[in-house]
Amino acid sequence: MEKLRFYNANILSVKDMTISSGELHTCGNKITYVGNNPPKDDFTREINLCGNLLMPSFKNAHTHSAMTFLRSYADDMPLNDWLFKQVFPMEDKLTPEDVYELTKLAALEYFSGGTTACFDMYFHPDYVEKAALDTGMRLVLCGAVSGGDSQADYDSALSRLENYLTRFNGKNPLVSFKMGFHAEYTTHISILKAIAELAKKYKQPLYTHNSETANEVQGCIERHGKTPTVLFEELGMFEYGGGGFHCVHMTEEDLEIFKRRGLWVVTNPCSNSKLASGIAPLYKMYNMGINLAIGTDGPASNNALDMFREMYLASVLQKIREDDAAAMPADAVLKMAVSGSALAMGLTDCDSLAEGKKADLVVIDLDQPNMQPLNNTVKNVVFAGSKSNVKMTVSNGVIVYENGEFPTLDKEKIFAKSNEIIAAKKAM
Amino acid sequence: MEKLRFYNANILSVKDMTISSGELHTCGNKITYVGNNPPKDDFTREINLCGNLLMPSFKNAHTHSAMTFLRSYADDMPLNDWLFKQVFPMEDKLTPEDVYELTKLAALEYFSGGTTACFDMYFHPDYVEKAALDTGMRLVLCGAVSGGDSQADYDSALSRLENYLTRFNGKNPLVSFKMGFHAEYTTHISILKAIAELAKKYKQPLYTHNSETANEVQGCIERHGKTPTVLFEELGMFEYGGGGFHCVHMTEEDLEIFKRRGLWVVTNPCSNSKLASGIAPLYKMYNMGINLAIGTDGPASNNALDMFREMYLASVLQKIREDDAAAMPADAVLKMAVSGSALAMGLTDCDSLAEGKKADLVVIDLDQPNMQPLNNTVKNVVFAGSKSNVKMTVSNGVIVYENGEFPTLDKEKIFAKSNEIIAAKKAM
Repeated sequence: MEKLRFYNANILSVKDMTISSGELHTCGNKITYVGNNPPKDDFTREINLCGNLLMPSFKNAHTHSAMTFLRSYADDMPLNDWLFKQVFPMEDKLTPEDVYELTKLAALEYFSGGTTACFDMYFHPDYVEKAALDTGMRLVLCGAVSGGDSQADYDSALSRLENYLTRFNGKNPLVSFKMGFHAEYTTHISILKAIAELAKKYKQPLYTHNSETANEVQGCIERHGKTPTVLFEELGMFEYGGGGFHCVHMTEEDLEIFKRRGLWVVTNPCSNSKLASGIAPLYKMYNMGINLAIGTDGPASNNALDMFREMYLASVLQKIREDDAAAMPADAVLKMAVSGSALAMGLTDCDSLAEGKKADLVVIDLDQPNMQPLNNTVKNVVFAGSKSNVKMTVSNGVIVYENGEFPTLDKEKIFAKSNEIIAAKKAM
Repeated sequence: MEKLRFYNANILSVKDMTISSGELHTCGNKITYVGNNPPKDDFTREINLCGNLLMPSFKNAHTHSAMTFLRSYADDMPLNDWLFKQVFPMEDKLTPEDVYELTKLAALEYFSGGTTACFDMYFHPDYVEKAALDTGMRLVLCGAVSGGDSQADYDSALSRLENYLTRFNGKNPLVSFKMGFHAEYTTHISILKAIAELAKKYKQPLYTHNSETANEVQGCIERHGKTPTVLFEELGMFEYGGGGFHCVHMTEEDLEIFKRRGLWVVTNPCSNSKLASGIAPLYKMYNMGINLAIGTDGPASNNALDMFREMYLASVLQKIREDDAAAMPADAVLKMAVSGSALAMGLTDCDSLAEGKKADLVVIDLDQPNMQPLNNTVKNVVFAGSKSNVKMTVSNGVIVYENGEFPTLDKEKIFAKSNEIIAAKKAM
C-alpha cells in the first residue's frame, strides 16, 4: 500500500484558516498523521515540500463534466440561442461512450487545477462513474431526472432515482450518489411531488438547479404562484436537507428557508457571469450563516473547470454587488471551495487535513512570483493564485498530477478522443 | 546575434483574429519572417511548437509594478482604509532601491503570464527603468506627477515632466516615456493647466487616472463644475491624444470626447471589482468604436498581474452589466490585451507578428486539458485560458520564461529581496 510522506510543509487548517509548518503522512487513501512530531515509518515516497502550502484539494460542488466537448463551441451569444440552438441539439447526439471519454477529459482538467472531486449532474451516470474509477477521481453523482406529465416520464424519473440510490452508493469508495432533479421548469409537478416523497422515504437530501435566472423564477411563480424554493419547501423536499445550484435570484423568504433547513447554496460565479444570469447575493447569505459551496458549472458555459477563477469571482463580484471592498473576505471563500464544497457533497471525510480523513490533497507552489512576498498566504491563494500554482494533486491517496504531468493517465489519448467526438457530432 | 526559429506553429493574426499554421523567425530583437515559405538560415535555436499557439505577447497598459510589496498585505477592507491607512503610509517608506527590487519581482510575474511590456506609473522612474533594463522587460513610463497650489509643487511637477520626456525617450530601445499626471483630485488646477500647455508645446499625448470611482467624479464636479474628462478637454489636454486609466464612471459627453479625440480607455476590471469601484461601460465603448486597452492596475489592489484574468473579467463583467450573454466577445478582448494595449502605450512595433515588428511573443500551450477540444482557440484562450498555458515568453527577442523557469534571472534572489523589504517596512 502506497505510503507518502510530505515534509517541510506549510499546512492549512480549514477550521480556523491558519497555516502552520509540519508534515503529513498517508497510507493508502487515508491521512495517517498531521503534525510536528511525526512517527518513523517506511514510506513509498518522501516529498520535501520546501515550505510550499499543503491544503485539502478543491471540491467542485456543481458541474456537468462531460460538457467539455462544447467548450468554446458556441459563446458570446444570447442565452436561449446558446442553449436551444447549440447545446441541446449537440447533447442529443452523445453516446454513453462519449460521456465516458469527455468526463475523463474533465478529470484531467480538475486534477491540473487541484480539484479531486466533483458533484456531477449529467446523462449516463454509469459511464460518468466508469470515467471516475478509471481516472481515480472522487465522484458524487447527482440525480438529474426531469420529465413532463406523461406516465412514462413519471415512471422513468422515479424508478431511476430509486435505482441509482442503491446502485451508486456503498459500492466503491470513490463514488456516491445524491438524490436530485434537473430543475422545477423541466420537471412536472407530479414528478416533483413524488420525488419529495421518495426523499422522505429514504431520508435523503435533495439537490437541484434553483433560481439560476430571473426568467426561471418568474416562470415558476406563473406556474405555481411561488418561487422554486418555496415550492420545494412546501412539497416537503428538504426534510433531510440538500441544496440548490446557482441560487442567483433569491427572495428573503427563500434565503430564510435555506438558513432554517441548513441547505447548501452552491454558487457558480463564472457561469452566472458568462451567461449573464446575474450575481448571487452570496455575501448576504454568508452573513446569514447559510451553508456555502462553490462549483464551476459545465465547461460549455464557463469555459474552464478552474476553482481559482471561481474563488476570485466569488469574492470580487460581491464587492461590486455590495459596493463594499470589505465584502466576502478571502478566507471565507477558500473555506467554501475546499471544506464547504466537500460537505455540500456529503464528503464528510474529505473536508480537512486530519488523521483518518481521506488523502485528497493539493500542493500549492508558493515559489512563484504571484505568491511573493508572503504577506498573507490565504489571500495570495484567493486573490493572486492561479492553477499555475498547483504543483501536485493527490486524489484518494494517489498522485494524479505533478509538475504539469499526469502520471497515471494518457492525456494525449484523451485529448484525441475529445476532438474526434466533437468532429463526429459536427458532421452528424 | 540571437536567431530563433519557431516552426510547426499556429500563428495568431491580430488583424482579423484568425489563426494559421506557419513559422516565425527572429533576429536580435526583431521578427524577420512570418509565413509558410521560410528562407533557410542558421539559427541559434530551432523550436518545434508542435501546433501550439504563437501570438504577440500581452502588454499591460496600466500598472504600478513596484506595489508587489503590498500584495495581500491589506485586502477585504473599505477602500479609504486600504488607501490612506495601509497603502500610503507604507509607500512613504520606500527607497529608490526598493522600487528597483520590487519592479523586478513584477517583471518575473509578467513574464510568467506572457506579458512583456508595461505602462508603469510610479515613483523613482530611474529605478523602474533600471529594473526593466536588468530584466529585459519593455517599459513605457507614464508621468505620475501631482501637487497642491504651492509654487514648489508647481515647479517640481512641470520640471519633472519636461525632464523625463527627454531623459527616458530615445535612449534605450526597451524604454520610453509618455506624459501624464496622477489624477485630477491630486493635482491643483494651476498644474493641470500648465501640463496641458506642455503637452501642446511638445505635441505629446497625455495619460491619467480618470473617473475610477464615483466619488472622484463627484469631487471634480464640486471643484470645477464638470467631469474630469470635460475638464481635461477644456484645458486642451488632448490635442495630441492620450488616454485614461479605469474610466469606470463616464458620462455620454465623456465618451464622445474619447471617441472624437481617439483617446485610449485602459480598463482594469479586476482592480475595479476588488476595490468595489464599479464595472466600466466597456461594451458601450466598444460599440462606439472607442480605442480599448487592458491593464492590471497595481498588485496591491488586484492582487495579480495576470492578463488572462483581466481578459476573462473584461468580457464576463460586460455580459452581467448589459444583461446580455453576447456582449463583449472573446476576439475583441484578446485584441485589446495584445495590440490594443501596445498601441495605447505607443508601442506601434509590438502590436502584431509581422516582419520588422519587435520580437515580443508568447507561446500558448494548447496541449493542456483546459484547451481541449480545439473548437475555437481564441475563445479557449479568453474563456478557458490561464497563465498555466504560457509555455514560453520572448521579450525583445530574448527568451525570458520557458516551462516555469526564468533562464536570464535569479528568481530566488528577487523573492528573498521582496520579503526583506516588506519585513523592514513593517518593522519601521
